Amino acid sequence: LGTVCIFGTGDFGRSLGLRLLQAGYGVVFGSRNPKNSSLLPKGAQVMSHEEAAQTSRIIFVAVHRENYDFLQQAGGEMLAGKVLVDVSNNLRRNQYPESNAEHLSKLVPAASVVKAFNTVSAWALQSGGLDANRQVLICGDNSEAKQMVVDIARSLGLTALDKGSLRAAGEIEDYPLQLFPLWRLPIALATGLTAFIFFYVLTLDVIYAAVIDGEDISFRIMVSLANKVFPIVSLIMLALCYLPGAMAGFLQLYNGTKYRRFPDWLDRWMLCRKQLGLIALALASLHVLYTLIIPFRYYVRYRVNIWTAAQIKQNKTGTFDTTMAWRTDSYYSVGILGFGLYVLLGITSLPSVSNTINWREFRFIQSKLGHLTLFLCTLHTFLYGWDKFLRPSAYKWYLPPGYMLSLVVPCVVLVLKFVLITPCVDRAVTRIRQGWE
Amino acid sequence: LGTVCIFGTGDFGRSLGLRLLQAGYGVVFGSRNPKNSSLLPKGAQVMSHEEAAQTSRIIFVAVHRENYDFLQQAGGEMLAGKVLVDVSNNLRRNQYPESNAEHLSKLVPAASVVKAFNTVSAWALQSGGLDANRQVLICGDNSEAKQMVVDIARSLGLTALDKGSLRAAGEIEDYPLQLFPLWRLPIALATGLTAFIFFYVLTLDVIYAAVIDGEDISFRIMVSLANKVFPIVSLIMLALCYLPGAMAGFLQLYNGTKYRRFPDWLDRWMLCRKQLGLIALALASLHVLYTLIIPFRYYVRYRVNIWTAAQIKQNKTGTFDTTMAWRTDSYYSVGILGFGLYVLLGITSLPSVSNTINWREFRFIQSKLGHLTLFLCTLHTFLYGWDKFLRPSAYKWYLPPGYMLSLVVPCVVLVLKFVLITPCVDRAVTRIRQGWE
Amino acid sequence: LGTVCIFGTGDFGRSLGLRLLQAGYGVVFGSRNPKNSSLLPKGAQVMSHEEAAQTSRIIFVAVHRENYDFLQQAGGEMLAGKVLVDVSNNLRRNQYPESNAEHLSKLVPAASVVKAFNTVSAWALQSGGLDANRQVLICGDNSEAKQMVVDIARSLGLTALDKGSLRAAGEIEDYPLQLFPLWRLPIALATGLTAFIFFYVLTLDVIYAAVIDGEDISFRIMVSLANKVFPIVSLIMLALCYLPGAMAGFLQLYNGTKYRRFPDWLDRWMLCRKQLGLIALALASLHVLYTLIIPFRYYVRYRVNIWTAAQIKQNKTGTFDTTMAWRTDSYYSVGILGFGLYVLLGITSLPSVSNTINWREFRFIQSKLGHLTLFLCTLHTFLYGWDKFLRPSAYKWYLPPGYMLSLVVPCVVLVLKFVLITPCVDRAVTRIRQGWE
Ligand SMILES: Cc1cc2nc3c(=O)[nH]c(=O)nc-3n(C[C@H](O)[C@H](O)[C@H](O)COP(=O)(O)OP(=O)(O)OC[C@H]3O[C@@H](n4cnc5c(N)ncnc54)[C@H](O)[C@@H]3O)c2cc1C
Ligand SMILES: Cc1cc2nc3c(=O)[nH]c(=O)nc-3n(C[C@H](O)[C@H](O)[C@H](O)COP(=O)(O)OP(=O)(O)OC[C@H]3O[C@@H](n4cnc5c(N)ncnc54)[C@H](O)[C@@H]3O)c2cc1C
Ligand SMILES: Cc1cc2nc3c(=O)[nH]c(=O)nc-3n(C[C@H](O)[C@H](O)[C@H](O)COP(=O)(O)OP(=O)(O)OC[C@H]3O[C@@H](n4cnc5c(N)ncnc54)[C@H](O)[C@@H]3O)c2cc1C
Ligand SMILES: NC(=O)c1ccc[n+]([C@@H]2O[C@H](COP(=O)([O-])OP(=O)(O)OC[C@H]3O[C@@H](n4cnc5c(N)ncnc54)[C@H](OP(=O)(O)O)[C@@H]3O)[C@@H](O)[C@H]2O)c1
Ligand SMILES: NC(=O)c1ccc[n+]([C@@H]2O[C@H](COP(=O)([O-])OP(=O)(O)OC[C@H]3O[C@@H](n4cnc5c(N)ncnc54)[C@H](OP(=O)(O)O)[C@@H]3O)[C@@H](O)[C@H]2O)c1
Ligand SMILES: NC(=O)c1ccc[n+]([C@@H]2O[C@H](COP(=O)([O-])OP(=O)(O)OC[C@H]3O[C@@H](n4cnc5c(N)ncnc54)[C@H](OP(=O)(O)O)[C@@H]3O)[C@@H](O)[C@H]2O)c1
Ligand SMILES: CCCCCCCCCCCCCCCC(=O)OC[C@H](COP(=O)(O)O)OC(=O)CCCCCCCCCCCCCCC
Ligand SMILES: CCCCCCCCCCCCCCCC(=O)OC[C@H](COP(=O)(O)O)OC(=O)CCCCCCCCCCCCCCC
Ligand SMILES: CCCCCCCCCCCCCCCC(=O)OC[C@H](COP(=O)(O)O)OC(=O)CCCCCCCCCCCCCCC
Ligand code: HEM
Ligand code: HEM
Ligand code: HEM
Repeated sequence: LGTVCIFGTGDFGRSLGLRLLQAGYGVVFGSRNPKNSSLLPKGAQVMSHEEAAQTSRIIFVAVHRENYDFLQQAGGEMLAGKVLVDVSNNLRRNQYPESNAEHLSKLVPAASVVKAFNTVSAWALQSGGLDANRQVLICGDNSEAKQMVVDIARSLGLTALDKGSLRAAGEIEDYPLQLFPLWRLPIALATGLTAFIFFYVLTLDVIYAAVIDGEDISFRIMVSLANKVFPIVSLIMLALCYLPGAMAGFLQLYNGTKYRRFPDWLDRWMLCRKQLGLIALALASLHVLYTLIIPFRYYVRYRVNIWTAAQIKQNKTGTFDTTMAWRTDSYYSVGILGFGLYVLLGITSLPSVSNTINWREFRFIQSKLGHLTLFLCTLHTFLYGWDKFLRPSAYKWYLPPGYMLSLVVPCVVLVLKFVLITPCVDRAVTRIRQGWE
Repeated sequence: LGTVCIFGTGDFGRSLGLRLLQAGYGVVFGSRNPKNSSLLPKGAQVMSHEEAAQTSRIIFVAVHRENYDFLQQAGGEMLAGKVLVDVSNNLRRNQYPESNAEHLSKLVPAASVVKAFNTVSAWALQSGGLDANRQVLICGDNSEAKQMVVDIARSLGLTALDKGSLRAAGEIEDYPLQLFPLWRLPIALATGLTAFIFFYVLTLDVIYAAVIDGEDISFRIMVSLANKVFPIVSLIMLALCYLPGAMAGFLQLYNGTKYRRFPDWLDRWMLCRKQLGLIALALASLHVLYTLIIPFRYYVRYRVNIWTAAQIKQNKTGTFDTTMAWRTDSYYSVGILGFGLYVLLGITSLPSVSNTINWREFRFIQSKLGHLTLFLCTLHTFLYGWDKFLRPSAYKWYLPPGYMLSLVVPCVVLVLKFVLITPCVDRAVTRIRQGWE
Repeated sequence: LGTVCIFGTGDFGRSLGLRLLQAGYGVVFGSRNPKNSSLLPKGAQVMSHEEAAQTSRIIFVAVHRENYDFLQQAGGEMLAGKVLVDVSNNLRRNQYPESNAEHLSKLVPAASVVKAFNTVSAWALQSGGLDANRQVLICGDNSEAKQMVVDIARSLGLTALDKGSLRAAGEIEDYPLQLFPLWRLPIALATGLTAFIFFYVLTLDVIYAAVIDGEDISFRIMVSLANKVFPIVSLIMLALCYLPGAMAGFLQLYNGTKYRRFPDWLDRWMLCRKQLGLIALALASLHVLYTLIIPFRYYVRYRVNIWTAAQIKQNKTGTFDTTMAWRTDSYYSVGILGFGLYVLLGITSLPSVSNTINWREFRFIQSKLGHLTLFLCTLHTFLYGWDKFLRPSAYKWYLPPGYMLSLVVPCVVLVLKFVLITPCVDRAVTRIRQGWE
């Protein structure tokens, strides 16, 4: 398969060398002190930079950007016509005014610089684990040079993704520094909502009991309160997944055309619905677990005990309330079905699953079944509340209980959606959207 | 990377243009009214169709099939030797006698038509989300032309899949119109079975109680009945996953050779086992959730209460029945282990997981552990029934209770499988199948 | 797309032929008895080996290695310059001294042999299901010949992975014979630990009760004991995931450099952490399910009943213990959060998810959140034990209860990690590791 030259015998250079050898390439290292270190992979040669450069048309520069100067010094004839692969990363964004690859290209203008391999970790290369990303993002101005790098990446079992000209190098260098950029907004929202709802229900439950009844029921924070906060936030965030779709529909109706761009905030909102939805799913899963441990909580057992004792003492057995049985069984049942669909939405957003289904199928699940999920979860909460909406005693300090708050956004979304699917509106929307599958 | 021409400034054209620009291509739109619309991606040019066609060898025809005529009119010299990419979709299958791409090829015989990109949605292209399918199915008669399209697809981060000659265009056009074709049969089966079992247990539980005892226990539908229907259907469907394998084995024994094709219905059945299994898993998950909420159901609490009160009044404490403890604990434990394996089967059928394991490993999990799963689930149900099989009181209206029905198919499968793995039969089967890994 | 020749009309040959025809290739079979069998895919031709070889430059040898001799006999001129694709597998490792492909290459030195397609199953090819691996591993000495095979693999919708020269053929032939090699050690460890802990808690619970109190509580094995063994083993294995990382840190501190290789056992241990973690997750899931069924166990209901009756008779209602409420609610809550993170670790190790996130994100979840998971699970167990550490009655036969054992390794790991992240040590480690991302 030919010989590949690597400048720098550091972690990355050695790891890359090892993999290249395993894949059948010859490997020659260029180093400042070319003595065969015991760490170097067996079968590789080490030489001075100048000698090493002779052996191959392609040279990986596995050296930190700060130390690129030696290339310029030796530079000139030695590297003329070579393909230099810049693998370097920075410590933070915008550390330098121009990207490392462009800097390298200026230092050695006679060579074709290709940016690549910086997204792959030395550790992963060496261990062969490659647990995280196997994608090698590539850019460069010389397409033949790029093709050489693409071929090498492929033969190491990596997927190469062409990102265009060397101008894209900055973006590629930023990529490994990212930490869940799309998740920021949804996580911030979830945190904010959680804090707000937590203090709200804390006030209504614990503080109210402390102030009005003088009781200390602060232990309820750990489970009872958590089991209010999580489902409430989950339900609101689920609704927020489907609100922008409805708003977009009305906006298009109002504009009378799909050929007008959505306002920026709406666009951004729509792009983070997946993340919103997954966080909502995580919170709903917590709700389910918190609910399922209810029966063996000490507090619950204690209460049940007291109640049984009281009933026996009074020698009365409460009559069986069929409505109560229907209602409670229904809200559990609806909750379970809603949760089942919720998990299904989650499963279909796994990249490997969504990648095997076509667009129509994806929309069927995410949009149709998604609205059904929202409907079931809302119904679950309604049935849980039942007639408490009408009882004034439910409104402590004139504030509605938490779950009523949680119903506002879902109801708005469901009503909007309902309007959108009434035949006449639907026809109008369909006409406007025509062609947009 | 060169310039790409796109005819049509609609949703798809613009979205594609945006992505091409981002990937470093030059983009020229051909439009009926070539004025630079504000919606067009920045950096793209718009011209008349004729002018635009000059700029590039490859032209994406992002126009609906109904409007292809303008290509013919202008046609001839303008498009001679060009690569025309047909991206169009239809509204339903068999809308036209011949595929859009073949139609286009007849309209402009001097050009090489390639069918591609119709599986990708404009919205996905634009937002960069590409949540659903990233696969671009490609077909065409000119392989050089196809390669150009493949290259473009790859540089947009999509995976290109060559489907052969232009005759395959019809199939490619049908693909985005599919809605879970492989899931139809299993879903129909699941629905039918669910309906049947539901009415069966409704009769035995609710109607029987209403007719014979005059009691209204219809509230049990929501949870108690659901928690019979779901596991029963799940168990039957699980068994139906493994029945065709056993039947195939006996058929091969009977034929004495593997070189005879299976009857058609068996082939079709075998191809939808994955879907059967996943639906069964979903139903089993519902069973588990329905089971776990049992302790805090109003009805259950009420019953427990009554019972405790009665016992205390009679001043007797039931003696502890060790057999009962063993039996119930065993059936829970076996159910949990069975469910754990069930979930494992589900996890290994995720495309990304099944794609990292080899065929032997896949068969080990799906076939060996699959039969173990079936065995555990059957055992769970047996232990649940225990000695009720013998008690006549269990047969209301001379009908066996639901779970007995559910045991028929699993037992048949297990017995067949057991016969197949007895040494002598196994040797015969192995000899016949030899070579088929 | 040209014509492809296949020698051998067995399962593999026919299945491959079918797929090739579907992809648009012409297919010609070479067979010992060239009569058009009804099993052969429609559209394919069958000829003698000699005739068939004329039709194509590439020949798939779909014949078992034992029968390769006919190639040599006919050999010579017929196959000179051809590309022979060796698809064969063996029944077990090291069945022959040299790999099948190298053997073929020696038999027909005039042809270029390429090893490929042996990882794909005939059944999968035929049914189009391809549920398991879609990867075609390829090796060979002639790169042009390899490219032809790569192209064919791609056009069948498979991913081709170049493994270098024909020397790699042995490894490729071993691949389909593997059965979870990386999982061996972790599974052995899990089994060993489970057995040990099982007998330990069996002794302390069941045997102790039998010997000292003369009680038979063996029914507790099914659920109560299982629900001790699983979480204990899970916690220990979770800690074992994070122990090697800490040890590596201290080793590097001690060495003062990262440029020294880790001892072999440490390297091997680090490479199976993923598998260790996933098994631990499975056991933790079982713990959760076993916990959630507690309330409706016969034994538990019986005990609760007795206790209620006793309390009512004595006419005292136990006072509500707020500390108890806090403690128990806390340990449930911490357990749930820990389990949530645990599942998150599992989800991010799905290949398709880990492949979409970058290295920094992967490390954030696996390392940072992983340690948090370990911390939460340890805290959960501590809170469960609470003050029993101090009560001598907890130490039956002077042995500590199981959960205390389970806390040893986690505590060690957490302490080591804590030392490693104290500012001064952290600075030293960071300096040493610099560059290793
Ligand atoms: C657990 C979970 C997981 C999720 N995973 C994902 C995920 O993986 N990916 C994802 O995207 N979302 C995901 N979501 C969010 C949500 O389910 C989807 O975004 C869903 O598709 C939204 O449906 P919708 O009908 O509101 O919006 P859409 O169907 O996307 O429609 C929204 C808007 O897009 C515009 N639009 C649609 N069609 C046209 C047209 N023809 N012409 C012009 N404009 C048009 C309209 O303005 C429309 O109102 C997830 C949610 C949850 C709860
Ligand atoms: C949750 C869940 C998920 C599932 N996911 C999947 C999935 O992803 N993919 C999937 O396929 N199934 C899936 N299934 C279904 C099922 O587990 C598998 O199909 C399983 O492999 C069937 O095993 P078997 O032993 O019955 O059949 P197989 O092992 O497939 O064998 C069936 C028949 O194929 C024929 N056959 C096998 N070997 C030979 C040979 N050497 N020569 C000739 N004929 C041969 C035989 O006639 C044999 O009896 C799933 C099931 C469940 C419950
Ligand atoms: C459910 C579950 C799933 C899991 N899935 C996975 C998985 O998919 N993949 C996986 O790998 N693990 C997985 N694990 C195991 C574990 O979470 C990870 O291995 C985790 O990254 C270990 O973190 P750590 O901080 O201990 O080790 P690491 O972060 O890997 O560091 C370990 C050691 O590597 C060496 N090292 C790290 N950085 C440098 C450097 N700059 N220079 C020199 N040496 C360095 C050091 O010696 C360091 O101590 C999983 C665990 C669980 C519970
Ligand atoms: N490590 C990773 O996981 C990873 C991942 C992606 C990208 N990268 C990038 O790969 C490059 C190398 O990283 P690394 O982790 O291998 O670093 P490293 O371990 O510190 O090794 C750097 C090597 O560069 C050479 N070098 C140092 N100073 C030099 C100088 N003044 N002149 C010439 N050569 C000098 C040295 O090799 P000699 O002693 O042989 O000259 C040294 O071994 C960096 O740009 C990094 O961003 C690393
Ligand atoms: N939208 C999707 O998600 C999607 C996905 C896959 C495939 N497709 C296919 O892409 C094609 C375009 O879809 P689209 O969604 O972009 O549709 P669109 O938004 O309706 O745009 C169609 C464009 O075609 C041009 N056009 C219309 N009538 C014409 C005529 N009589 N003569 C010449 N040009 C005419 C117009 O461009 P000018 O005004 O500039 O001439 C118009 O913008 C269709 O074949 C569709 O099946 C679309
Ligand atoms: N089956 C799989 O799933 C699978 C997967 C990967 C690799 N493979 C490999 O593919 C090869 C074929 O496997 P298979 O399953 O197709 O086996 P098979 O069904 O037994 O067929 C073998 C074919 O080889 C030909 N053959 C047998 N003896 C011969 C002889 N003495 N001289 C010349 N040709 C002879 C026969 O074809 P004619 O009667 O037409 O001459 C026969 O149909 C094996 O090397 C196997 O390891 C198979
Ligand atoms: C018990 C508690 C549970 C917590 C589990 C909740 C699951 C949802 C968590 C979301 C995880 C996101 C991963 C982040 C990594 C990332 O950025 O991942 C990035 C990728 C997206 O990449 P692209 O958007 O670029 O394609 O995201 C994903 O892959 C989405 C993963 C979805 C996972 C859903 C799995 C559903 C399984 C349900 C299990 C339910 C258990 C129920 C127990 C009772
Ligand atoms: C609570 C309830 C639960 C419901 C969850 C049940 C999970 C099974 C649902 C099947 C989903 C199929 C997706 C359909 C899309 C499609 O066509 O998908 C198509 C692809 C198949 O494509 P190919 O066959 O073409 O390769 O199918 C899949 O990807 C299979 C996905 C399997 C998912 C299993 C996940 C297991 C996780 C278990 C979680 C358990 C939670 C337990 C809580 C107590
Ligand atoms: C109820 C019980 C549960 C059992 C479920 C536990 C899940 C963990 C099991 C691990 C499965 C490993 C698959 C082996 C195949 C293989 O070798 O797989 C090999 C691949 C690894 O390949 P590479 O290392 O080569 O990339 O492993 C994987 O793909 C890892 C799969 C991880 C799956 C985690 C899924 C989390 C979902 C959690 C569901 C929780 C349900 C909770 C219910 C209460
Ligand atoms: C397995 C499925 C589910 C079950 C068994 C279940 C059960 C319950 C129970 C028992 C309660 C009352 C809690 C209490 O008394 O404090 C409750 C409340 C609630 N549930 Fe669920 N639920 C499920 C799924 C869901 C889902 C998917 C959602 C959607 C997000 C949801 C949203 C809510 C809300 C908002 C409340 C009101 C919280 C409050 O203010 O007390 N539930 N659920
Ligand atoms: C976590 C795992 C499981 C637990 C805890 C569990 C528990 C139970 C319980 C308590 C019952 C009795 C229900 C009742 O009284 O109405 C039951 C019944 C049943 N279970 Fe499970 N189960 C589990 C998994 C499974 C699985 C995986 C299957 C396979 C499909 C299954 C099949 C059945 C069947 C068929 C019945 C009889 C239903 C009836 O007619 O009442 N169970 N299970
Ligand atoms: C949903 C989350 C969880 C819940 C509700 C939960 C609940 C419980 C309960 C009720 C017990 C006492 C069991 C008994 O009385 O026999 C327990 C014990 C224990 N749990 Fe968890 N747990 C959870 C998650 C975890 C996780 C993720 C781990 C980590 C591996 C864990 C480790 C342990 C350990 C080691 C014990 C002590 C076992 C013994 O010796 O009895 N738990 N847990």
